[in-house]
Parts: sequence; C-alpha cells; structure tokens
Amino acid sequence: MKKPHLQLITKAAQLIAAIVSLAITLSTQAAITVNHPTLVINLQDVIDMRAAIKTPGAFQQAFNSKKSHVESYIAHAITVPVPADSGGGYTHERHKKNYQQMYDAGILFQLTQDPKYALFVRDMLFKYAELYPQLPRHPKRKNSNEGKLFWQGLNEAMWLVYTIQAYDFIIESLTESERQKIETGVLLPIADFLSFQSPKTFNKVHNHGTWATAAVGMTGFVLDKPELVEIALLDLDKAGKGGFLKQLDELFSPDGYYNEGPYYQRFALLPFVTFAKAIEQNQPQRNIFNYRNDILLKAIYSTIELSYNGLFFPINDAIKSKGIDTMELVIAVSIAYGLNTDAINDKSGLIDIAKQQNRILLTGDGLKLAQAIDAETESTQSHYPFTSRKFHDGKNGDEGALIVMRQQVNQAEPSQALVFKATAQGLGHGHFDKLNWQFYDAGAEIVSDYGAARFLNIEAKSGGGYLPENKTWAKQTIAHNTLVVDETSHFDGNTREGNKHHPQVNFYHSDSQATLASASIDTAYDDVSFTRTIALISVNAHGIEYPLVFDVLDVDSVNQHQYDLPVHYQGQFIDANFPRQSFTNQLKPLGENAGYQHLWLKATSQPFATETPSRVDSDLAKNMLTDNALAKVTWLNDNGHFYTHSSINDGSTQVLFTQLGANDPNNNLRNEKSFIQRVNNRAQHRFISVLEPHGEYNPAAEYTLNATSRLQSLTYDRQDDISVIGFSLTTQTDAAQQFVLAVSHKQADDNLKNNKQKSNNHSITNSFSYLSKPYSFSGRYLLLTITQ
Amino acid sequence: MKKPHLQLITKAAQLIAAIVSLAITLSTQAAITVNHPTLVINLQDVIDMRAAIKTPGAFQQAFNSKKSHVESYIAHAITVPVPADSGGGYTHERHKKNYQQMYDAGILFQLTQDPKYALFVRDMLFKYAELYPQLPRHPKRKNSNEGKLFWQGLNEAMWLVYTIQAYDFIIESLTESERQKIETGVLLPIADFLSFQSPKTFNKVHNHGTWATAAVGMTGFVLDKPELVEIALLDLDKAGKGGFLKQLDELFSPDGYYNEGPYYQRFALLPFVTFAKAIEQNQPQRNIFNYRNDILLKAIYSTIELSYNGLFFPINDAIKSKGIDTMELVIAVSIAYGLNTDAINDKSGLIDIAKQQNRILLTGDGLKLAQAIDAETESTQSHYPFTSRKFHDGKNGDEGALIVMRQQVNQAEPSQALVFKATAQGLGHGHFDKLNWQFYDAGAEIVSDYGAARFLNIEAKSGGGYLPENKTWAKQTIAHNTLVVDETSHFDGNTREGNKHHPQVNFYHSDSQATLASASIDTAYDDVSFTRTIALISVNAHGIEYPLVFDVLDVDSVNQHQYDLPVHYQGQFIDANFPRQSFTNQLKPLGENAGYQHLWLKATSQPFATETPSRVDSDLAKNMLTDNALAKVTWLNDNGHFYTHSSINDGSTQVLFTQLGANDPNNNLRNEKSFIQRVNNRAQHRFISVLEPHGEYNPAAEYTLNATSRLQSLTYDRQDDISVIGFSLTTQTDAAQQFVLAVSHKQADDNLKNNKQKSNNHSITNSFSYLSKPYSFSGRYLLLTITQ
Repeated sequence: MKKPHLQLITKAAQLIAAIVSLAITLSTQAAITVNHPTLVINLQDVIDMRAAIKTPGAFQQAFNSKKSHVESYIAHAITVPVPADSGGGYTHERHKKNYQQMYDAGILFQLTQDPKYALFVRDMLFKYAELYPQLPRHPKRKNSNEGKLFWQGLNEAMWLVYTIQAYDFIIESLTESERQKIETGVLLPIADFLSFQSPKTFNKVHNHGTWATAAVGMTGFVLDKPELVEIALLDLDKAGKGGFLKQLDELFSPDGYYNEGPYYQRFALLPFVTFAKAIEQNQPQRNIFNYRNDILLKAIYSTIELSYNGLFFPINDAIKSKGIDTMELVIAVSIAYGLNTDAINDKSGLIDIAKQQNRILLTGDGLKLAQAIDAETESTQSHYPFTSRKFHDGKNGDEGALIVMRQQVNQAEPSQALVFKATAQGLGHGHFDKLNWQFYDAGAEIVSDYGAARFLNIEAKSGGGYLPENKTWAKQTIAHNTLVVDETSHFDGNTREGNKHHPQVNFYHSDSQATLASASIDTAYDDVSFTRTIALISVNAHGIEYPLVFDVLDVDSVNQHQYDLPVHYQGQFIDANFPRQSFTNQLKPLGENAGYQHLWLKATSQPFATETPSRVDSDLAKNMLTDNALAKVTWLNDNGHFYTHSSINDGSTQVLFTQLGANDPNNNLRNEKSFIQRVNNRAQHRFISVLEPHGEYNPAAEYTLNATSRLQSLTYDRQDDISVIGFSLTTQTDAAQQFVLAVSHKQADDNLKNNKQKSNNHSITNSFSYLSKPYSFSGRYLLLTITQ
Repeated sequence: MKKPHLQLITKAAQLIAAIVSLAITLSTQAAITVNHPTLVINLQDVIDMRAAIKTPGAFQQAFNSKKSHVESYIAHAITVPVPADSGGGYTHERHKKNYQQMYDAGILFQLTQDPKYALFVRDMLFKYAELYPQLPRHPKRKNSNEGKLFWQGLNEAMWLVYTIQAYDFIIESLTESERQKIETGVLLPIADFLSFQSPKTFNKVHNHGTWATAAVGMTGFVLDKPELVEIALLDLDKAGKGGFLKQLDELFSPDGYYNEGPYYQRFALLPFVTFAKAIEQNQPQRNIFNYRNDILLKAIYSTIELSYNGLFFPINDAIKSKGIDTMELVIAVSIAYGLNTDAINDKSGLIDIAKQQNRILLTGDGLKLAQAIDAETESTQSHYPFTSRKFHDGKNGDEGALIVMRQQVNQAEPSQALVFKATAQGLGHGHFDKLNWQFYDAGAEIVSDYGAARFLNIEAKSGGGYLPENKTWAKQTIAHNTLVVDETSHFDGNTREGNKHHPQVNFYHSDSQATLASASIDTAYDDVSFTRTIALISVNAHGIEYPLVFDVLDVDSVNQHQYDLPVHYQGQFIDANFPRQSFTNQLKPLGENAGYQHLWLKATSQPFATETPSRVDSDLAKNMLTDNALAKVTWLNDNGHFYTHSSINDGSTQVLFTQLGANDPNNNLRNEKSFIQRVNNRAQHRFISVLEPHGEYNPAAEYTLNATSRLQSLTYDRQDDISVIGFSLTTQTDAAQQFVLAVSHKQADDNLKNNKQKSNNHSITNSFSYLSKPYSFSGRYLLLTITQ
C-alpha cells in the first residue's frame, strides 16, 4: 500500500502535468490551422509516396496489391447494416470490414488523387451518418463496455480510430455541407458516445480507455476541436487522473512491459502508437515518443521480444496463434522505424522484424521500411538481437518481473527460450500462475501454458468471447507449471486479492553460458511461501554443447499440506523409467475444483517407493542420490526432438498422469497432457528437476537418434546460501562426464532498490564442498567439469 | 479362385519366361567383361559428373554439400560394432550409417579420384570382412526374417544394396588380394546368407524378397557371378516361381498399384528401380523398364500420385510422416527422368516432384534432373498434373481399386482430395477397411485414417516395431471411416480370410465438375452386403464454386444387426445441431473388442428422436426431409477452415462421440476423435451424408468467416437405378439456392470385363422426377440448379 504523503506528492505531480499539458494545448490551439492529412501520414509523406509508387520495389508492390484489392469491392453496393450480431456475426464483421475499406480507399485517394476512392468513403460515411443517430444501444451489448454499432464500445472506438484516418484522407475533397453531414451525423456523435456518454471506460487506465481516448483525440485533431484532444490526453475533467498521458504513466512498466502480458500489449499498442504519432505531428513540442524515458519505444521493443519463433508467449488470457505479424505490431514497427530519435541506436533489427511480418504499409514510415528492405543485400541481412532479459513489472518497475532466458548453443541448432513468470497479477486477464515457467526449443512449445480458453469470434463457442472454461480451467493454477497447495489456486482464484501482491525477484544473471533467476512469493497462500530458482545452461560434454534446464522449487510452511507441481508437456508420451498404474478401463476427474475437475486421471505412480524407503526430506541434502532415484518422463514433440524431465524422487513423491477434458460438455478444451509431482502431508519440500532436449525422430528419413536421456545422475545439496547441484551426462559411446553447478543465493539485486548500481559481478567469494573437495567462486554461479 | 486350366496356362507362360531369361543371361554372360561402375552409375555418367562439379549449379551445390558432409566423418575412426540392438538401437543405427557412409565416400572417389575416399570404404569393408564370418544369428532376431548384422534380414539386404554400389565405385582401386579379402569375407557370405541360407524370404513374392534379390543380383553383376544374377531374377531353382521377374509380374497391379499400399510401395520401390537400372546397364536387351507394359514406370508414377500435399495416403500399415521426399522416391524419380523411353510423354512433372524433394543425387540421372531444374525459369515452371484416378488392384487388375478423387474449384483455393478404398486386403500389412474413405482439404487431413500404430525405431515403443495397438486398434474396422456390423471387424479381423476377397467397383466417372464412384462388397460379413457411392463435386451457388462430398452407404441383410458408421475427424469440435448427453464425470470404453475397447465414449445422442417420431426407413425415400432432420457436426481443422458433416437422421440413428485412448496403458495411441452413427436392430439401412468445407478462422488477423454450414436441406430418393439427391445451399446475405444431383447406377464398368471398351459416356437416357417434375439425362450423373 502507498503511504499517504506519497499519494499527495503523486497528486501534485499529476496536477502540474495537467496544467502543463493544458498550457501546451492552449498555446498550440491558436497557432495551427489543420493541414490534411494530419494523423499518421502528413503532406510530405504523401509527396514521397506518390513518387515511390512509380518506382519498382516493395512499396510499389504493396501499392499495386492494395489497389487491386480495393478495386475488387469499390464498384459494389455499399452495405451498412443495422447492428444485430455479436463478435464473429455478420453485422459485426461487416462493420469491421467497412472501416478497413474506408481506410484503404482513403489512402488510395491520397496516392492516386482519383476521386472515385474519395466518393466511396464519402458515400459510406453518408450511410453511417444516416444510420447512427437512430441507433439504440446494441442488442447484444456487453454490460461492462456498451456499444451501438458493435456489441462493445471497444469495437466502436476501433471503428473511429480507422474511420477518422479515412476521413482525414478525403476531407479536402468534400463540400462544407458534406462535411457537416458526416461530422454531425456520425463522427462527433461517436466521439461523444465514447467519451461523455461512456465516462467510466473513457477515464479508465486500461486498454479500452486507450482505444477510446485515441479515437476521440484523433477526431479532435482532424475536426480541429482542441477540447476533444484535451479530454483525450487528460480525462473528461482534464484532471490527469485518466486519459492518454496517465495511461502512458501507468500501463507500462519502466521496461515497457504491459501488465496484462504480450497478447493484450500487442492489442493496446495500436491506439498508443497511432495516437502518439498523431500527437507528434500536431504537437511536436510534446516529444511524446520521449515521454517517460521513451516508454512507447520500450513498449514496442518489449512486444517484439515477448515472442518465440514469431508467436507471443501465451501468458495470461492469450490466444496462442497471435504473433509478431499482427497488424498492430506492423504499424508499431513502422512508426518506430520512422522516428528521428536518439533513443534507438540501431534500427536494423526492426528491418528483420518487418521482413518476418511481410506486410508493407502505405504510410510514410512504411515507405522508409520498404526502402530499407529493398536496399538489403545478402551480406547486410539484419537479425533482431533476441537476448535474455528481465522485464520489470509494475508502473514503477517494482512489482516482480517477467524473465526471458534465451540460448543458442550453436548456430546450427535451433535456439531455446524459457519464460519465468514472476510478474504481478495482470488485472482481469491475469492468471493465477505465480512463478510459472514455459520452455521452447527447436521452434516449438515444449513445456507449455494453455493460454486462453477462447475461440475468437466463433459464435457457436460462447459467442466468440471467453469460454466458461477460461475461468474454470485456463486461469487456475493447476493449468500452469507451478506449485498448487491443497488443490487450491493462488490467492484462492481471487483476482482482486491477486492484484494486491506480487513476487520478489531474488536475482537474475545472464552470460553466454548460463542464465539464472530466482524469485519468491509468500502471499499466494496464507501459510505457504515458495521460492523457485531456474537456470538455462549450456553444458559441454565430450566436446558437444548440450542445453539443460535446472529447476529447484522450495516450499515452506508451518503446517502440513499437499503440494502439486505439474508439467504440461507438448508431445506424445514415450516412456517413464518407473511403473505406472494406468486407468485403462475407466477414467475419473482428478479433483472437484480449481481446475482439477477438468483433468482426467490416466495413471498414478509412486516411483521408487519400495526401493528407497528410507529417503525422506532430511536425507535430501546429505545423500548422493543415484540414478534409480531419478524419475524420468520422456516425450516426443512434433518438432522431431525428444525431451526428458528428470526429477529427484525420494520415494514418497507420487507422479500423476492426466489428460485435459473432464467436465467439458461442449468439448471446449484442447485435450492436452500433463504429469504432476505430488507430495502429501508435508510442511517443507524441495522439488528438483532437470529438463533435457535430446535426439531426433525422423520417420521420413527413417532414423532415430538418442531417444534416451543422457542425464545419468542428479544430486542437490544446499550449503548455506549455495545450491550445489551435481550431475553427470553420458552417451552410448562415451563414458559419463561429471559436472557440478553451484548457484549463489546470497545477493538479491531487485530487493536492494537503493543499491541498484551494484553489479551482478560482485566480488564476494562463495565456498562450498563437493565430493569432499572444497571449491570457491565469485559471482552468481560456477559450472565445472569434475575430473575424477 | 482360379480355374485349373488357367493355372496351367500361367505355369507354361512362367516356364517360357524363365527359359527366355536364362537364354538371355547365358548369351550375355560370355560377351561382357565388367566395366566399373556398372550398377546405377556408368562410365559416361562419371565423365559427365566430373565436368558438372566444376560448373556452378544445383549439381555442384549438391556435390559440395555431400563432400563437406563426408569430410566431417572420414578422418574419424571407423566403428563396426558387434551387432546387439534392434531397430533404433545403437548398433543398428551404426551399421545403417556405415553403409550410407561407404556409399557416399565411394561416389566421391569416382567424382574426385581422391584415394582417401576409396581407402575409407576399403578399410571399413576390411572390418566387416573380419567381423562377418564370426557372426551368429542376431541376438534380437525376428523369426520371420532373420539377420546377422541386423535384427532382420531385410536390413541385411539393404546393407548389401548400398554396399555393393560402394564396392563397385572403388573396386578398381583395390589389389587382387584386397578384393579377395572383401568378397570372400563379407560380400559373398552376405549374398549367400540372403539367398541360399534364407530361401523362404529370397523366393518370396513380397518386398522382403525384392530387397534380397536386388542385393544378390547386383552383387552378381559387380563380382561377375552370373549365377547370382540368375537366381535373383528367377528364384533359387531358376524356375521363375519367385525372383525379381515374378515380383514384377505379381506385386503391382497393371496400373502400378502395390498391393500393400503406398507406404510399402515407396519402400519396395528402391530395390525395384535400383536393380532394374543395373539390369538396364548390364542386360539392356531385356528392356526391363518396358517389361509388362512399363510396369516399373507405372509404379513410380502411382507412388507419386498416392499422395496429398507431399505426404502419402496413410492406408494400411503406414507411418503418416512419409511422403514424396523419401530417399526411395528421390532415387526412383531420378531414374525415371534419366530413361530414354517413349513410355513417358512428358517428363516435366517429374521436375516439379524433384523440386519438392529438394535433394539432388550424385548420379548420372541426378545430374540430368539438376540441369533441368537449373534451366527452369519462372515462366517454364512445371507442375505435376495430379488428377482423379482409379488404380486397379490385383496382379490382373481385377481385385477392386483404389479411387483417388481430386478437385480444385479455383486456382486461389487449395485443392481437395478424396481417397475411396475399394482395394483387396493388401496381405499382412492390410487393414480391415473395405470401402473406407479419407478426405483432404487446404493441405490437411480432414477425415482421416489412423495409419499404423508404430514409432519407427524408438526402442522404448515395442523396440521400434509395430505396437500391440496396431493389431488391436489400427487394423480394426472401427479405426476407419466405414461400416462396422455388430462391433465386429470385416472378415472378423482375419487376414487370411480378407486376402481371399475384394470389393466390386460398380462405376467410376470423372470430369471437371464431379468425380463419382461406387463399390460393393458382400464378403466382409457372412450375411451383410453393402454398397457405397461417393461423389466429390463442385457446386456453383450465387456465382461461387463450393466443394461438396456426397456419401451414400446402403446396407443390406436378411437379419437384423447393429450398424456403426464412424467419421474420424481432425480438428477441434465446434458444434452439433442436436443435444448430446456428455459423460463429463466418468468415461468408459465403448466396447470390449475389435478396437471398440480403445474408444472412450464421451457423449451419446439421438438427434430428432422426439421431434420426428414417425420417420423410419420406409419414409426416407418418400419424404422431403427438412433441415431439422439433418444432424450436423462442425469441427475446425488446424488449417483454419471449418468442416460440417451433415447426415439425414430418421430419428432412430444415435450419434456417439468418442476419443481414442482407452485400454492403452503405455500411451501408445494418439488421442484422436470421432463420431459414430449407429442404428440398431436393422436389416436394411441407408446412411446419407454430406461433408462441406466452409469458412475461415484467422485469430492472428482477428476474423472469422462463415463458421456455420451452408447446407440448408438434403433429401434422398432412389428411383429404380437412379439416386436423386436434393439439396440447398444458403449464405447469410443471399437466399438459399436449390440443386438436384442425380446419379445413375445403371452401368458398371468394372464388372463387365468383356465390355471394357464401352465408354462411360453411354447414350442410355436416365429419367427421374424431382419435386413432381420430370428430368432426363444421359451419362453417369446430372447436377442442376432448380429455379422455383
């Protein structure tokens, strides 16, 4: 909770910001007469683009393609139906298509000066101007954010964001009375509906608010109504408690991380960058792109980096097929590329992303990118420099972090990525997944997050919105790869409670050989705290580099509980090195609540229960555990590689195998698979696991290589603040090679806010013993080959 | 069964063939001294290739790539381990790698004349020459086909097919004593082991026999041992009852269809074309590629055509990831391309396939293909002309057929393919799937066949061989999209019984608008016969072409039975237009035997049971059934398109929804989904269904189009020998359009063997009435738009 005097200071700062903004607005108001176009594209852009469409190249191709697309519909009758359907339905899709068509025809008018394009936009706007004033609220409206043309006001704002740009393109071709008809018939009424008639959404510091303020503010620029720009920037009261600037202050962390995650970050990005670009054109003195230390550029870059193989990390409510080629990011990348700012040292990475997006925009910035792509040769090919990163969460950067670990053991091998989620809750779209992880390899999800339970815009599936199973399954903790206590989700599945808390990042370190991070949370459950430490490392065994993931999860409580740790794996189960009792003739759900009701229990097991009866908690630290206490599960991913999850099993840990799909009468869920490590009646427990990619299955070329795990042994020993992990790797032809990985937990960089400049490469020496020999190291970790 | 006097004639013909063969062999024997290389590559090829590797182009690239690959291992120690492992295990994969390495090093010796490559092959062969004489039978041998180096003799033959070519490449670099050591130490002993010591396999008219005879015959050519060539061609007794020529006579139908299906056809193709090419070089007077009306070329072309989107149709025991880029077909396509024969009118289609294969062989034929690919420009791009075809089955072409229907409604749309399996059993790898069908659209499987239950070479999965579930699930009738009577598979799951029978193809017709076929079988069950008629058509509604599949299955018996008709669909269930009773809290298997024990019953339903209580069999023909008697199931494939299966439901047909995975303790099965139409206590029944691709789901671009089926009504009326199918299609913006499809069952082309020349375009007039109006047509079918 904030302290009172801090709140006062914040309020004062907001007031000053508001006054400054207002002063700027008022001073600019008198000086400028509007030249059209005036939003994302300006007059100079138009001149450059008119030249470029006469010159062979990527831009000309994009123009020709867009032109032939527009020709395909421009001669047809204009259809502006009375709103009836929800998302995915006919009238919904028709109105979406209409604003896209107006935008496209408008830009073609600017580029070709052929009046037929302007007439198309004008005539469609006439129809809207006739229809809109008669419209009641949409028959299928959503309570939280009502619309008229659409079932939700969000879509109404999107309509205006596009349409006001189309209007800006053709306004100079219209007579005064035509303008009057369109502006008073539809543009101003929608702006009014989105702002004064929907104050809750408009003032909200949330992506729905950003869409509304962008739409209204851009309308203000085009129609020369400074009042609309002001309320868009500062909220309806011009108090700065909401509005676009407040959204810039609060919706992103200082690293540009958006609190709902990359799926909504991508979605929110469009109104942010589009309105910002319009502000840059109309009020350059604001330096909006440098606002809050270039926060918008950071947001664009972090959106790019929260992806693997072109798809966004599906954390929180996320549809998994969304990736960097979405139109929102196409627009954002082009705008970033077009900026003249010192904030970007090297723009060549953006060219790589633009090539992957493979969509050239008909804007001034799109032209610059197209020319850069045309100018590239094979030797100057750019590659976006994806690296390991910690993205702080929270508007002040002090509410945990999303940690992305990346590794490419050699150029011939595909890269690995690991996502360690130690963020805050992420508001209403957040999942109860504290300290969750995901793993990617060779282009594919290996240990995965379900994402959202939703079929976007398919009416038969709950009207295309979130399915009931999004709440009962996808948000629940058991749907993730993290600790579940007593079959209850984090914060008992209560979003409001979740929003109050966040994990602590204990440390983060990355170099070319290893990336490590550790985080803790003691608020997810009343009496249970847990700390997770994850390392993605590259180990050289017998001259070959192998990627390995180490995962140590320490649970602590004063009371006894049941602890479950699931692994949701993608692929076909191949083998486990312990006997299982399969339910072959009848399936029952694993539990009754918190997502457990959706899991069919397919098999149970208690590996090594009889073989090592003496292994209990206290022995863990002392004993060298041998191979037969490593519980291994191997699966085969569709990418043709094998993955083995090995965990130290003390003989009292059950492994449960499940398949998703119980209590799902409408088959809304994908039938994904997982295994769950379970211990009962424990206060403390430590889960120690290794994930190992290996081998290749190539039935087309008829070979199978290294289908079995190389990990021969794994030991863990905690010596004060040092984790000492011993392991050995073997191959079929070479002898096993022994390693030790020591990780220091001593210093936390995140918690010591007042000591931020202190480097990770601290000089404190860490000492430990392994196999009775002493070792010491400075820094975060030591990885050594042991020669015996 | 054959009649006795026919057998006599066949025997006499075989004897004559044998004598002719022998005469040719003996006459050539004296005349030729062996010039090396003498198998797939000859001296002229070597001269051409030595020039080509100095010229930039695809061939030079392939050479450079192969060279750098060979350099990566040639300096390392040679490893020839004592055989121990089964498929996928270390020694198995090592010996496979060894013969590939010898082959590659051998061809590099021919191309570069660098002795180091020859020495590598020689030294490895020395190690084999030392090891082989001491070897007992393989410790993990298969009873049916034993090996020494490998667990099965089949792999031993493959070893020799590659190794004898490698030896042929380096033989002239060896001293007489080196040759002696290698030939007597390993080559001749293996040839002897594969032939005289394994007479059953060697003489077998089966792909294992082809591998053995090819290996032994090619060894005969290289070592100048005509005796080996003779037994390879004519069997161990030189009687022509087995051997390569007999295999050419019997293993392919006159259309080049291989009785085990494309997966094994592809596999068998390599020894066929490789040995044939060697015969062509050494005994050109045989005209082996023109043997039996160019049967080998027909086999190559039919292998290509039994594929969709690069993957083979997975009928019978087939691993689904196998496709046209397999090495066997790369070799076959290059050899076909290299032939000088009038039998191929146009080779440009082969260039298209070679480009898709993307592997240039370092052979004379590979060079010709590489040069053709280099010479192609954008305007001369070739496309393989995939068309609808009927592939007759059986060595005489009279044992049913595999019917492939193809359609591309317009160039912008992806093509459809439908496989209608009215073939014979296909020996030991055959499935009990009479009159099964599969459907493909937009690059993906939509209605699918499970293929084989096998993880090739993964030891943890039953040693990499066929899993137990291959027999208990994959082969069973319920695993396919065809009729199951009383929960019992066709021929009661007895392969020997299945091999005795085959379906009758009643008719097959194809033109640009429609492909239709009908087939019947009365031997799959004692007292039940069934006829299936399938049509893939393109319907023009409101100016747009839509693909539709019509499926009518007539069942007839004197006794009452339970009839099940499953549809195994690929995708996520979206919706059904009838209520279902889902088993949400407990699952049980659907049955106990014949594959039913592997299906979890997820939901049951009896659509329209209460709404249309009067609808029974006899009404079907008379009533115009309306929309509410059409039971619709819609799913969404990963290709982003929707598919709706609509079936006329008389109120007494249950629909059962299942998921695969019961009684599968080792998770060997993929958890695929199906729905099953079921009627009980019926003697006659007619299943009438339509499959309809529609719409698009694009969550990345955030739109969903036409998620609901356009089929508004469907009626069926049998008028004498004419099926009269009425249907209407609607869209959200246009009114419904009414069609009638009439199919004549009058004339059967397949059954009238003595009247083969009679065209499908017969002039008989077919008359029928529809909605009380009379119509008539000649030919196989009529498709009309009804204007009302």
